Amino acid sequence: MAQPETLANRPTDIDPLYDSKKAYRKRMEEFTGELHDLQRVLYAHQRFSLLLIFQGMDTAGKDGAIRHVMSGVNPQGCSVHSFKQPSEEELSHDFLWRTTRRLPRRGHIGIFNRSYYEEVLVVKAVPAVLAAQKLPEGTSSQPGFWADRYRDICHFEEYLHRNGTRVLKFFLHLSKDEQRERLLSRAGEPDKHWKISSADLDSRAQWDDFQKVYEECLQNTSHALAPWYCIPADDKKNARLIISHIVVEALRSLPIAYPEVDAKQKAEVLRVKAALEGKDEG
Amino acid sequence: MAQPETLANRPTDIDPLYDSKKAYRKRMEEFTGELHDLQRVLYAHQRFSLLLIFQGMDTAGKDGAIRHVMSGVNPQGCSVHSFKQPSEEELSHDFLWRTTRRLPRRGHIGIFNRSYYEEVLVVKAVPAVLAAQKLPEGTSSQPGFWADRYRDICHFEEYLHRNGTRVLKFFLHLSKDEQRERLLSRAGEPDKHWKISSADLDSRAQWDDFQKVYEECLQNTSHALAPWYCIPADDKKNARLIISHIVVEALRSLPIAYPEVDAKQKAEVLRVKAALEGKDEG
Repeated sequence: MAQPETLANRPTDIDPLYDSKKAYRKRMEEFTGELHDLQRVLYAHQRFSLLLIFQGMDTAGKDGAIRHVMSGVNPQGCSVHSFKQPSEEELSHDFLWRTTRRLPRRGHIGIFNRSYYEEVLVVKAVPAVLAAQKLPEGTSSQPGFWADRYRDICHFEEYLHRNGTRVLKFFLHLSKDEQRERLLSRAGEPDKHWKISSADLDSRAQWDDFQKVYEECLQNTSHALAPWYCIPADDKKNARLIISHIVVEALRSLPIAYPEVDAKQKAEVLRVKAALEGKDEG
Repeated sequence: MAQPETLANRPTDIDPLYDSKKAYRKRMEEFTGELHDLQRVLYAHQRFSLLLIFQGMDTAGKDGAIRHVMSGVNPQGCSVHSFKQPSEEELSHDFLWRTTRRLPRRGHIGIFNRSYYEEVLVVKAVPAVLAAQKLPEGTSSQPGFWADRYRDICHFEEYLHRNGTRVLKFFLHLSKDEQRERLLSRAGEPDKHWKISSADLDSRAQWDDFQKVYEECLQNTSHALAPWYCIPADDKKNARLIISHIVVEALRSLPIAYPEVDAKQKAEVLRVKAALEGKDEG
């Protein structure tokens, strides 16, 4: 029998897919170019949507991955939502409510920088965050509470899939040492000082707790229609290449095409063309 | 083995719960008074919410039931949403999206006049309505398509229940003869002429189709946490009494109470009282 997959034995670093900065740039350009073209078809076809979910510890590279991978897409068909502290109104609803409102419509790409997965990550690791949700008393101490949340999330994603939304989930898997390097590097760059707070130390102090909840999350919410991609994230460039590859592959595999134009529509095009070229416009 | 429950053998008319107009008024007043008190506790407790769903053919009495049953509640903690033709934006999302955005927050009562159940009612009875949803091609002709929708709805309601929302679903069961009487009565009242359209005749022409989709819906989406209440609706007053009774019972059965005030908060109350009575305010 296979050993249960643990985060500790999944790499945060692998052999890179590029051997030079130039080779990296070239591959990224190929990917973003293809992504640009595929997005136009997705948009015109208007039956599918794509939801990209990014999770990971602070400094894991979520913002950078979104910026670089999505650099070629048309923002008219793409929106990014960063989910930070929930509002009081959001806390007053069921836990999927605030992200559901931001789901991409057909033809669009939606990107969640953090997501409803926080509901089984920080909410599980930090009891005070769960308490703030004001669930009916006793609910969260019942056995099966987290199992229900995992299952509700899986059901929800299966439902989304059936209704045309493809969900791609990326966990940026960073080592604790690499996080230290990145935080120190931020401290050395004045332009990035706004990103630093003592909360960074809190989450480092709880590092093992967070690794545990991530591991449980990945084990319980990977399913056939929406598996987790555990991305080695110690090398940012390599992570971006891997993510680009997965996104492009997902779009390639969709049965999408520009809408076919029927005879009536063709005649309409000719009529409009003739009118524009004719005397009325003269 | 019990015969499968069909709508045809469920009554649209039963012995009334009242024997005079005066007795009806008295019982309604009792209900609305109790509902008013219970809503205040629900609002203060802020951990549960109540979702009332009303479905039924045109003229079944949905608007009137909502108006009469909810007449005593504080609108600050209660909102009604009537779902009619979906917008283009709504059609561009998964089928639960537009109603999810309107779900009641903790402490509130939400009322859906028609609801996501239309997705397995009119959408199932009228193929053109389904076509407008622009699902991925071939999806809706797959076996299991409607079974998936029923199941998705049940999963969703179970999830809501676990997160503190109690869902009460009322199908106002009207006879075709009574509908004819009501439409004719509308035609005789100039103030109600705005409610009449030839669509009323269309849905009468499809009466049997609609009864069939309602029956399939009730059979497939009644579950332990949110059963359907099939309300005999030929007598409006009686229907309202039954609905009131169910709503009040649902609230009574919730473990809600005004929040208990701890010693610190009690001291705070005394401090504020003293300050207001003291010289500063003098």
